[in-house]
Amino acid sequence: MPQPGHVTRLREADESQLPEDLRPYFQKCRDKLGFVPNVLRAWLLRPEKLRTFIRAYDELMLGPSGLSKLEREMIAVAVSSWNSCYYCLVAHGAAVRKLSGDPQLGEMVAFNYRVADLPERQLAMLDFAVKLTERPYDVGEADRQRLRDAGLSDEDIFDAAEVAAFFNYTNRVAHAVDMMPNAEYHALGRANQ
Amino acid sequence: MPQPGHVTRLREADESQLPEDLRPYFQKCRDKLGFVPNVLRAWLLRPEKLRTFIRAYDELMLGPSGLSKLEREMIAVAVSSWNSCYYCLVAHGAAVRKLSGDPQLGEMVAFNYRVADLPERQLAMLDFAVKLTERPYDVGEADRQRLRDAGLSDEDIFDAAEVAAFFNYTNRVAHAVDMMPNAEYHALGRANQ
Amino acid sequence: MPQPGHVTRLREADESQLPEDLRPYFQKCRDKLGFVPNVLRAWLLRPEKLRTFIRAYDELMLGPSGLSKLEREMIAVAVSSWNSCYYCLVAHGAAVRKLSGDPQLGEMVAFNYRVADLPERQLAMLDFAVKLTERPYDVGEADRQRLRDAGLSDEDIFDAAEVAAFFNYTNRVAHAVDMMPNAEYHALGRANQ
Amino acid sequence: MPQPGHVTRLREADESQLPEDLRPYFQKCRDKLGFVPNVLRAWLLRPEKLRTFIRAYDELMLGPSGLSKLEREMIAVAVSSWNSCYYCLVAHGAAVRKLSGDPQLGEMVAFNYRVADLPERQLAMLDFAVKLTERPYDVGEADRQRLRDAGLSDEDIFDAAEVAAFFNYTNRVAHAVDMMPNAEYHALGRANQ
Amino acid sequence: MPQPGHVTRLREADESQLPEDLRPYFQKCRDKLGFVPNVLRAWLLRPEKLRTFIRAYDELMLGPSGLSKLEREMIAVAVSSWNSCYYCLVAHGAAVRKLSGDPQLGEMVAFNYRVADLPERQLAMLDFAVKLTERPYDVGEADRQRLRDAGLSDEDIFDAAEVAAFFNYTNRVAHAVDMMPNAEYHALGRANQ
Amino acid sequence: MPQPGHVTRLREADESQLPEDLRPYFQKCRDKLGFVPNVLRAWLLRPEKLRTFIRAYDELMLGPSGLSKLEREMIAVAVSSWNSCYYCLVAHGAAVRKLSGDPQLGEMVAFNYRVADLPERQLAMLDFAVKLTERPYDVGEADRQRLRDAGLSDEDIFDAAEVAAFFNYTNRVAHAVDMMPNAEYHALGRANQ
Repeated sequence: MPQPGHVTRLREADESQLPEDLRPYFQKCRDKLGFVPNVLRAWLLRPEKLRTFIRAYDELMLGPSGLSKLEREMIAVAVSSWNSCYYCLVAHGAAVRKLSGDPQLGEMVAFNYRVADLPERQLAMLDFAVKLTERPYDVGEADRQRLRDAGLSDEDIFDAAEVAAFFNYTNRVAHAVDMMPNAEYHALGRANQ
Repeated sequence: MPQPGHVTRLREADESQLPEDLRPYFQKCRDKLGFVPNVLRAWLLRPEKLRTFIRAYDELMLGPSGLSKLEREMIAVAVSSWNSCYYCLVAHGAAVRKLSGDPQLGEMVAFNYRVADLPERQLAMLDFAVKLTERPYDVGEADRQRLRDAGLSDEDIFDAAEVAAFFNYTNRVAHAVDMMPNAEYHALGRANQ
Repeated sequence: MPQPGHVTRLREADESQLPEDLRPYFQKCRDKLGFVPNVLRAWLLRPEKLRTFIRAYDELMLGPSGLSKLEREMIAVAVSSWNSCYYCLVAHGAAVRKLSGDPQLGEMVAFNYRVADLPERQLAMLDFAVKLTERPYDVGEADRQRLRDAGLSDEDIFDAAEVAAFFNYTNRVAHAVDMMPNAEYHALGRANQ
Repeated sequence: MPQPGHVTRLREADESQLPEDLRPYFQKCRDKLGFVPNVLRAWLLRPEKLRTFIRAYDELMLGPSGLSKLEREMIAVAVSSWNSCYYCLVAHGAAVRKLSGDPQLGEMVAFNYRVADLPERQLAMLDFAVKLTERPYDVGEADRQRLRDAGLSDEDIFDAAEVAAFFNYTNRVAHAVDMMPNAEYHALGRANQ
Repeated sequence: MPQPGHVTRLREADESQLPEDLRPYFQKCRDKLGFVPNVLRAWLLRPEKLRTFIRAYDELMLGPSGLSKLEREMIAVAVSSWNSCYYCLVAHGAAVRKLSGDPQLGEMVAFNYRVADLPERQLAMLDFAVKLTERPYDVGEADRQRLRDAGLSDEDIFDAAEVAAFFNYTNRVAHAVDMMPNAEYHALGRANQ
Repeated sequence: MPQPGHVTRLREADESQLPEDLRPYFQKCRDKLGFVPNVLRAWLLRPEKLRTFIRAYDELMLGPSGLSKLEREMIAVAVSSWNSCYYCLVAHGAAVRKLSGDPQLGEMVAFNYRVADLPERQLAMLDFAVKLTERPYDVGEADRQRLRDAGLSDEDIFDAAEVAAFFNYTNRVAHAVDMMPNAEYHALGRANQ
């Protein structure tokens, strides 16, 4: 499988720059995924920031939460779709395919989540996430109430908001440096297709 | 000085929830600022996320960088202005006033940075930050080149992009939960005014 | 206090150009405010227009109306915030601080009026003003009815509409000529802060 | 010719409310046009404002200026087209047809001025007016310079800006109250068509 | 009546290029309208496409449908107004004037259909058409239900959607090649004015 | 492979409604693709329109043109991406994968064509197509000139414009009726992935 020609349009950081304590993390990526996600190689240009990014990201997407990992990935993809972020659509679209076992759901959320036949809980989350992305100043109590009515606790609302907000951050870093996803993502989770 | 009626519209977290290791951090805030910024009290609802947020934030805004602290705060405020984020405009507008010793500069960046008579280096940063906020998919090599021409290294470009992107995250969390700034911010850095 | 470097980016009009009958008006400004607002010095480039502008403006903002002076200033600031008009945000933000005796209210309306805990009458006015600014063709009977329900007479609705509309005019003249506010505005009404 | 069913959606003001000194003005309208423009009947709800509006309007559109009356009307129509203001498109579209003697020019400016084969001077004015309408905060020195290059003096730039800005005001009052133009406008200036 | 200087900004196709079987069609235009609409002369650059365009267009606008020809023309004009398409506003604005016998209705739909006092059936159609034009991804079941409530069958909804969608196509071809309407359209249907 | 639950949200047309002369066409679809594309089953609700649609579509996408079939499909996908059209992104994304033999190119054009390393000829086409989609009234001579400079003849420019415009039509019909693509598309052209 051909690798994309670049990781970012900035100077490519050398892995020798990788701090000692993060080496096991890169190794774990290689063991589990077969590769180090390019987002980490991009952040490696600034090793201290790589460390805080990894911690924040892992807590956000993998830590304990009232939102399932799939729900968090769906929010990530719906936001990335609004922002047309190629990196995140490829990498997190793959995650939705894998976690859901439903490749078409991955396509739907990446292209236009409104066409998916989602339960109200998930539709409410994605509507919230996209409104927060497009017109954040218009989000108000009615939007939070819809999430509560769908069964979310205050902690869950915080988590949904934070995931949506966080991908408005990573999407923009990816755009700013023209970050390209690893080619391996494309094939992930397509078994049933 | 009257305190605003709420920190967020979600359940207010009790400080007893604050993890042991973060207590010195809150204490340092009280010592240096006289108060704990409401953004921390908001995140306290999810203590593990508070920890990763503090680390990422401190590295981003206070860590070593080719961008001065003032420049990072100016990017933060210009982005928050586009997103109409009250919390960040108040808190980081105060920081621009303080770090620059120029209260009018704080107002300019918060209301419309284009009216300020900025050196090209800073104007290029703010134009980059706001374009990345408004139409991230349109940012390209020409935009990066303008930053290079203004003297930014690749590391500096990464830092400028990350600060701009990060405030697209915090702005949206603030909007999502209706986060209110501490009243104390309003008076900060207005001495010369 | 340093004066901003320019009044506008057009030729600065000489006060000798000021028509005889408007001299007492400029004098009154100096007596009451301590300075002649730059908006008047900008318009002085076209003395006949200065005269009609002053009359229209004074009737609009100071004449008898079912809307209080503070309410009119709040509309002015909310519109100027949508339009990112530095001049009007500084000058009329000061007026909101002074008339309300509440500096934080001034900041809220200037940054994002939606965060303020306003009575429905004032919230309805500001929602109307901003919708009229952003998507004027979408304003319809339902929007007028909300104002009626909040207690506004037809004359009041006209006044609210006219203030909102008028600042869409002054904001644009200010942007067109890059008009800078007098430095003195920044300190006004900040006593309680 | 049938009259539209309403002047505005607010209470219709009685002409007995018309101040003594404005009666000759209404009479002059009837003598010259055959009718009183509905915009005046709309403003009659607030007679003091009617007086200042007439003065400002007449100075703006009929007073001495480096811009011809036709040029001012063209700016008015291009702005009203962006804002989809029915009243102003009908009333000022008629003025463009009449003043230019070219009904198709009237249609072009009302529907999309970019299709008209305009001299650079007028194209620059309309581009300036529409940019000032759509994204006022993006207007800068390059936009003013283009007007200068097309032969406009600083006074002319002020006048072009003010006409464009003023119709952002009248368009919004018209939308706010659902103002309908007099039926007579439709036939004006269509002789050559 | 002067003809506009160009049909499109591309090479003007020679009528000798017109396929044999389409000659009667052009002749019928000359007999009925007095001229060949420029849209056909524009498409003549690609004769095979001209043939399929004519067939699709005639079926769409003149074929049997639960929507009257006037209703289809009103949709065409409301869409063209949103897209600022000069060609279609002139040519189909004339059709609305003629089919309705109401020149002011033609102006209203071309400038801002919201000001017209339309029955709910037609207002619902135009709201649907313009929403489908502006934010197609936001159209959903509630929008279709409003059409059903106004009496439209599923076939009628399809037809309304297709007309709105089709003019998003022709508007864009017209913009892409700078297509100018025949001068004759301007006078059509203005008899009552 | 599970079929999506619906073809459209309108009454599903019965294939008995299919006109005699179109039966071979449906049969050819079954022979070549293994299924009848849902777009045809959607249009079957209006059989006369189905016939003109098929003719126009086949001429547009399969007929002789200076643009390759792949180039036309790339334009289709870039436009559909801007419009978030799930049906067209799935069906034509598959076509780009198949015609190019490069599944990642299909993803790039569907998610954000700007990240692809395209030759200027194709980049110019896609920039043109997306500008024509987003702000059609801003397309002008400079945009056409860029296409000419990239080697397109006037006929090619017409074809590029028409494909872009046509998908603004089909995207909107798909949104209007909530059209779902056949499940089979998802697996097409993924062999190399």
